[in-house]
Amino acid sequence: MPELRKDPVVGRWVIIATERAQRPSDFAAQPVRPVGSECVFCEGNEHKTPPEILAARSAASRPNEPGWSYRVVPNKFPALRIEGELEPTGEGLFDRMNGVGAHEVVIEAPEHTASLATLPVTAVADVLGAFRERLRDLKKDPRLEYVLVFKNHGEPAGASLEHPHSQLIATPIIPIMVAEELAGAARYFELKERCVWCDILRQERRGGRRTIVEAGGFVALAPFAPRFPFETWILPAVHRAGFDESGVDELRGLAGLLGDFLRRMNRVLGDPPFNFMLHTAPLRGGELESFHWHLEVIPKLTRVAGFEWGSGFFINPVPPEDAAEALRAGTG
Amino acid sequence: MPELRKDPVVGRWVIIATERAQRPSDFAAQPVRPVGSECVFCEGNEHKTPPEILAARSAASRPNEPGWSYRVVPNKFPALRIEGELEPTGEGLFDRMNGVGAHEVVIEAPEHTASLATLPVTAVADVLGAFRERLRDLKKDPRLEYVLVFKNHGEPAGASLEHPHSQLIATPIIPIMVAEELAGAARYFELKERCVWCDILRQERRGGRRTIVEAGGFVALAPFAPRFPFETWILPAVHRAGFDESGVDELRGLAGLLGDFLRRMNRVLGDPPFNFMLHTAPLRGGELESFHWHLEVIPKLTRVAGFEWGSGFFINPVPPEDAAEALRAGTG
Repeated sequence: MPELRKDPVVGRWVIIATERAQRPSDFAAQPVRPVGSECVFCEGNEHKTPPEILAARSAASRPNEPGWSYRVVPNKFPALRIEGELEPTGEGLFDRMNGVGAHEVVIEAPEHTASLATLPVTAVADVLGAFRERLRDLKKDPRLEYVLVFKNHGEPAGASLEHPHSQLIATPIIPIMVAEELAGAARYFELKERCVWCDILRQERRGGRRTIVEAGGFVALAPFAPRFPFETWILPAVHRAGFDESGVDELRGLAGLLGDFLRRMNRVLGDPPFNFMLHTAPLRGGELESFHWHLEVIPKLTRVAGFEWGSGFFINPVPPEDAAEALRAGTG
Repeated sequence: MPELRKDPVVGRWVIIATERAQRPSDFAAQPVRPVGSECVFCEGNEHKTPPEILAARSAASRPNEPGWSYRVVPNKFPALRIEGELEPTGEGLFDRMNGVGAHEVVIEAPEHTASLATLPVTAVADVLGAFRERLRDLKKDPRLEYVLVFKNHGEPAGASLEHPHSQLIATPIIPIMVAEELAGAARYFELKERCVWCDILRQERRGGRRTIVEAGGFVALAPFAPRFPFETWILPAVHRAGFDESGVDELRGLAGLLGDFLRRMNRVLGDPPFNFMLHTAPLRGGELESFHWHLEVIPKLTRVAGFEWGSGFFINPVPPEDAAEALRAGTG
């Protein structure tokens, strides 16, 4: 069973992932990236994944067989497990609990070489719809507090498989970074009685130096204080706290903008490795006036080193105004 | 001039390092690692660095010439600059200030292939003494609030040069990670009237499952909730808030333990890339009863990916008890 452990000073939780346990000698081994017929996510290899939780399928097809456009399956090497109770316990001054949660993979397309940048907008909207359905379903589990949807694309960004996929991890605790964002946004709301992201959108759309593209009710912009070169946030233009409340039109609007943005990024940076992370309201947050969901995209271009790990300060060699200008022009 | 910018939600500062500015096309280029006579840090190439700030030299030698055992020089591509005033300004709801600070390099030995793991204990103690002297000197500058000493070893850990070196960056703000640590430790002290690290040391030395080695007044241990496999903390066994207060005997004790630990790590993990970060009290902290300085060592064995960047949760595949056991046995 994986274990959750809390740092007694800063309150940061870590997952000690015993299911992924490695011996010291294992770290020398290089990760293997199966391609073609070896890929467990490719069409025809459905039996190589755990049984699917959700899929978009042709009427004639059956679960765990070919004939799908996306599949959601449990992660075969989960960081957290769905079975069991949390059972929080102490060890002297330390706190731990069982690693209860969920870890799922969204296989975004049957084709090995597809990507969210090149799939038709309807297919991208379907994948976003899968995120929404899983959020809604996991919300029913009272042990869970948060669901983080994220993507690792390319080995330097942490992907171990090449086939287009995203993941979600549901946690029994609100992650510290989300909690800090919620707290910061609540402080701003208390002071101004406005959502901070609504204010950012208003200011940025007026100024225009950091906006990248706006369409279908969504805005992509370079944040004022980005941690990473070409970091980009995608937000709904009007206030929305929970991604799971998105309607069909919103999913399609986001799909269009996301594809457009990824193509710009690929053109400017040459198909870089990247991560994205969906910051949405906590499962039990209710209708938050102070929180505005957003998708953070971070191309993996620089290395995070001792200064960042020791300080939480980030050194970014590309001013966001320059990044936005390059990405605006990147439509070709 | 580099610029400091603050995220309006979470309060995290970033450095927009214009001195290191890169165009999109620059990211495709591979970093170059000069060796031998090309290395700017090697003995004989003193003129290739900015003039030295501090050095240990033979009596017969002159500054910026051969005959040294360590040198401290300004970073040629500094993230922050020593000249100028902070001049905090707003841009609508955003905050920024000039990137005033210091960025220095400690060249640890004249030999290109030396390392803290293999240098004599007196040479390591001298390098630690250089950290102490620079902390003491930078403390005199009233614009500065914190000095982070850190090391990037190996390209995957962010090093751009192979020659053994550490760095320090002095900031006009207490970094958010240090501030969180200070706040967490202050909360613990308020509750218990004891330093949390003193309590951790007491518990861990009694239990023994996570201690690695103890000698010369210092303890190396695997923390209870490590972010990374084989993450190790080195702490003085008795309460000390500021590294800059260390006496000669303490520097020598630390040098002995650090060398021993690094040799164990190299034996177990095969000379891995790693970072270390010195967490010491802020420059203007006074005598803190609640803070205990410590050196964090993180081998770079896993990739940080979307889940970590989006949540602040870390997934660690190696329980610290297993890491400590391997490192304890690693003395060979």
